[in-house]
Amino acid sequence: LAEEKIVTAALLVIGDEILSGRTADRNIHYVAEHMTRVGIRLKEVRVVPDEEDAIVSAVNELRARYTYLFTTGGIGPTHDDITADAVAKALGVGIGHDERALALLHAFFAKRKLEPTPARLRMARIPHGASLIRNAISVAPGFRFGNVIVLAGVPEVMQVMLDDITPQLDTGAVMQTTTIKLNRAEGEVADIFAAHQKTFPDVTMGSYPSFSDGRISTQLVLRSIDSKRLSAATSALELMLRANKLL
Amino acid sequence: LAEEKIVTAALLVIGDEILSGRTADRNIHYVAEHMTRVGIRLKEVRVVPDEEDAIVSAVNELRARYTYLFTTGGIGPTHDDITADAVAKALGVGIGHDERALALLHAFFAKRKLEPTPARLRMARIPHGASLIRNAISVAPGFRFGNVIVLAGVPEVMQVMLDDITPQLDTGAVMQTTTIKLNRAEGEVADIFAAHQKTFPDVTMGSYPSFSDGRISTQLVLRSIDSKRLSAATSALELMLRANKLL
Repeated sequence: LAEEKIVTAALLVIGDEILSGRTADRNIHYVAEHMTRVGIRLKEVRVVPDEEDAIVSAVNELRARYTYLFTTGGIGPTHDDITADAVAKALGVGIGHDERALALLHAFFAKRKLEPTPARLRMARIPHGASLIRNAISVAPGFRFGNVIVLAGVPEVMQVMLDDITPQLDTGAVMQTTTIKLNRAEGEVADIFAAHQKTFPDVTMGSYPSFSDGRISTQLVLRSIDSKRLSAATSALELMLRANKLL
Repeated sequence: LAEEKIVTAALLVIGDEILSGRTADRNIHYVAEHMTRVGIRLKEVRVVPDEEDAIVSAVNELRARYTYLFTTGGIGPTHDDITADAVAKALGVGIGHDERALALLHAFFAKRKLEPTPARLRMARIPHGASLIRNAISVAPGFRFGNVIVLAGVPEVMQVMLDDITPQLDTGAVMQTTTIKLNRAEGEVADIFAAHQKTFPDVTMGSYPSFSDGRISTQLVLRSIDSKRLSAATSALELMLRANKLL
């Protein structure tokens, strides 16, 4: 088996509204699924408030630790949108009204007969040296500087920006998954499952209980980038569960 | 105005399944709303995988930085449940089968005619010196050691544990919120809103756009622990928006 390439990422969600409970985040799960699908391993998520110090230190810790850092939130026109400036500060580069972003916004405003107010033009503030990420919905762009990728917080806009940037990303081996569903409590299969993990140390195994309608069930999830090993581990586990009348 | 007491918290969500996208987290939003309601400010959330090093360093960073650190996930019976051991390591204390937890589990197993397997009894592993948090659903307890509060990952169980521990927590001033809804884009109100924030620097103001059915709307959210200042800031903003035919 050749050494497989591993590409990692972190997601930084920026916004008081998530931490106060006013808004339920819809980006974490979407980004997690997207990363798994394209072959990037999401290794950490953080949620921080709209505060410069918190953003700057999270950006610097996470961009150093992972292949990519994605951020969501805080790039709109209002005074609480401080992500672009905070990211520029973290990167140690200047920031100003970007000519390319201004052209996009002016064209959009002209078509919609909107006034190019100073607040609206704040959305053209882009760190010097960054490339733009296309926003097919509301034009105001995201941006990428090195391994830092800055996306909108509104889920629909975040999603089109993610589609725009994904073809430019380095990706690694795609994690394959199998799931075995049991109408059993975790405790009934835990010893067999732990022994099975030792037999297949290269296949990551997790157990997820759930309750619904007063009934307990468990999903055993096996994950590997090697589909043959995954298939072998899954079949062997199913056989063992059947032999013990657990499946 | 007397100095109001501020109590802060972080939430550490532990679990590969959230990062891989297999499971959509349901605890972050619930904990965020709960903290706001009881007068604790949630200042940071992190999601890390079921890996000892990642858990240990996140626990140590976050417990030092905030009044409380809550964790969710990784306290079940299976081999991937390593939270209790990792937290003990972070705290620098020993861990073993806790007599109180064993008594609870043995009574529960006897009643349900379940065998007390080694895997099931893993759920009695509690760091030395921790107090137990009651689990009214499935008995296996959470625990508290100092300012670190370890809860289950299954939302229903996490919620009853949170109810059990909340009366023991120090709480501060409760953040009050008002919301003004506009059928307008953010950009139309951003200049007025930014000026208003400068007039009321003690009232935190945020703007949240959303799209639905192709229509754009914006919610202006004002937050303060002082209900009089909040009311004054909200009324003044509404007047100004009306005067500009924006509301």
